[in-house]
Amino acid sequence: MTDTAAKLADRRTRPQPGVFARYRPLIGEALRGELARDDIGVFSMLRFHMGWEDAGGRPWAGTEGKALRPTLCLFACEAAGGSPTRALAAATALELIHNFSLIHDDIQDRDETRHQRATLWAQWGIPKALVAGNTMRVIADRAVGRLLDEDVSVTLALSVTRLLTEAYLAMIEGQYLDLVYEGRPDIGLPEYLDMIARKTGALIRCSMTLGALLGAADEAEVEAFRECGRALGCLFQIRDDMLGVWGEERETGKPVGADIRRKKNSFPVVYAMSKAAGEDRRMLKHIYGKPEIADDDVGLVLDVMDRCKTRESAQSLAAEHRDLALEAAAGVEMSPQARGDLEELAEFLLVREH
Amino acid sequence: MTDTAAKLADRRTRPQPGVFARYRPLIGEALRGELARDDIGVFSMLRFHMGWEDAGGRPWAGTEGKALRPTLCLFACEAAGGSPTRALAAATALELIHNFSLIHDDIQDRDETRHQRATLWAQWGIPKALVAGNTMRVIADRAVGRLLDEDVSVTLALSVTRLLTEAYLAMIEGQYLDLVYEGRPDIGLPEYLDMIARKTGALIRCSMTLGALLGAADEAEVEAFRECGRALGCLFQIRDDMLGVWGEERETGKPVGADIRRKKNSFPVVYAMSKAAGEDRRMLKHIYGKPEIADDDVGLVLDVMDRCKTRESAQSLAAEHRDLALEAAAGVEMSPQARGDLEELAEFLLVREH
Repeated sequence: MTDTAAKLADRRTRPQPGVFARYRPLIGEALRGELARDDIGVFSMLRFHMGWEDAGGRPWAGTEGKALRPTLCLFACEAAGGSPTRALAAATALELIHNFSLIHDDIQDRDETRHQRATLWAQWGIPKALVAGNTMRVIADRAVGRLLDEDVSVTLALSVTRLLTEAYLAMIEGQYLDLVYEGRPDIGLPEYLDMIARKTGALIRCSMTLGALLGAADEAEVEAFRECGRALGCLFQIRDDMLGVWGEERETGKPVGADIRRKKNSFPVVYAMSKAAGEDRRMLKHIYGKPEIADDDVGLVLDVMDRCKTRESAQSLAAEHRDLALEAAAGVEMSPQARGDLEELAEFLLVREH
Repeated sequence: MTDTAAKLADRRTRPQPGVFARYRPLIGEALRGELARDDIGVFSMLRFHMGWEDAGGRPWAGTEGKALRPTLCLFACEAAGGSPTRALAAATALELIHNFSLIHDDIQDRDETRHQRATLWAQWGIPKALVAGNTMRVIADRAVGRLLDEDVSVTLALSVTRLLTEAYLAMIEGQYLDLVYEGRPDIGLPEYLDMIARKTGALIRCSMTLGALLGAADEAEVEAFRECGRALGCLFQIRDDMLGVWGEERETGKPVGADIRRKKNSFPVVYAMSKAAGEDRRMLKHIYGKPEIADDDVGLVLDVMDRCKTRESAQSLAAEHRDLALEAAAGVEMSPQARGDLEELAEFLLVREH
């Protein structure tokens, strides 16, 4: 698990871990099934958002998302000894809830593009985008109902529903905290970590928990998958925050320093704000106190971040969470393939470029 | 059930039917319980929306909503022979879903006041209001989980969840159709009735259905309550549309003609557009084709509506739906008090002034 030079050189071109490809057809078919309606135009907006159609409803072959959450859910189910189809309805719901939150996030952040395409509100206006997001959310609820078709007991289906509701509430609480923290220079690392554990962590943690539960893991195993998911969620968000500042435009679709310009509460700024001293600290506070951050300011902030070794600290915190994730799963009995998948997946989350 | 002069004279001052007062303490306590959290500020926004607190979180005694949906739900449960507490969790969820949709509607319509107070987005901005609406929605999901505390079986609880999901999807579809129909002069009465049956009707129909189901009505009775709820939903919306055009400002908080100025797709304009001929028709199309409707235009539209007897037609369509509601329930065995409550409630929906 130590980084070698070869591994580093390999990062650029490394393909996605095989676990994504393995479950993609199953997940893709289920998602398309949920959004296949044509009687109401809102579903065509949702297919556009998913990257399957253009704005005129014609098929479009573009970049789909990674489908991280449903992949984790099916993986956990299979690793725990279940057939992945048993967790498919829950996995589908997780991806739909995630996409619902992206649609609303884009409205909140006034982001006009996602994956190099217009966001829903930019294409159709805020009112319709808002309704489209809500539709995605209710389709998720409906997907959960399909658990019963897979021979899942009514009691287990209700537990899944309850866990999803709690994860979803935590996610929204995290989104709210993120808004409240905006522009506040006093937000420290503990507040930041609590915020991302809810905003991003809750749904990723829930993905692993539900998969394990549906794969018939015992209580201790479910708890282990849950802990593993918790750590993967933090790992995912810390790397995401790094890409928002240092990611390359051709990979992320956003210019370097994008999240600085947007004054996002992300790990790099929270860390730099807590570590910078003297003149650096004064400058950071001054720049973040301005109504708008100019290009020159972005450069100054990046310099301060460099001086307090923000990038290295972020990567090392992310690596800690990779280790925590693998340790949490260490006690769970699983096939060598599953163990290998998990290691590859955690490593991918640590080094991904988009 | 015929209108007498005495009844007409009584309309102005008629208090709300007793059924509202009877269930209000139960519903109020359950709602307050769901929104009692203080660790995350979003809950204080929700209490503000409900009319319980001012924007600073201090207690506020203002106009609360009628709580029509939970009242119908508890009424149907008791009329079907159940204890109203058995339906309380579902009733609470219905009111929370309704309020979630109000919060998002206000963002969509850019409405800055509701019940003479600021709307959430006007007070806290769109991003926080959006999240607040989503929080209200997930609290509704959580409330449904409390059905199990009232000795409701897991299977019945899942049915309730499924029916709520379907009603909620229909509601969103109706909201989407409403947006799509905006500014289209070719929307006829059938499209309008289909749209309101979803946008408003679905949740009101669901209120009666869930109440009956939880009150252990048999299948035919559940169907009768469902039909009754369907008609009450249309009745409610037609009267609402009338108040949006002819309602008095001191009752509704909106000036006469408010919905004309906003170009809302409501019964009066759909009806007038379908009935007006010659010069009246040309004028209507011309006015609704303008980017903004001026005060003088509102007067002209009101005149056209008068000439094709729009108000009378609306009231008569509303009365038809009151009759349909009572006929649907006629075959259900219920106590004389329940029967009286239902008649009083339907009559109230027909003549309410706000």
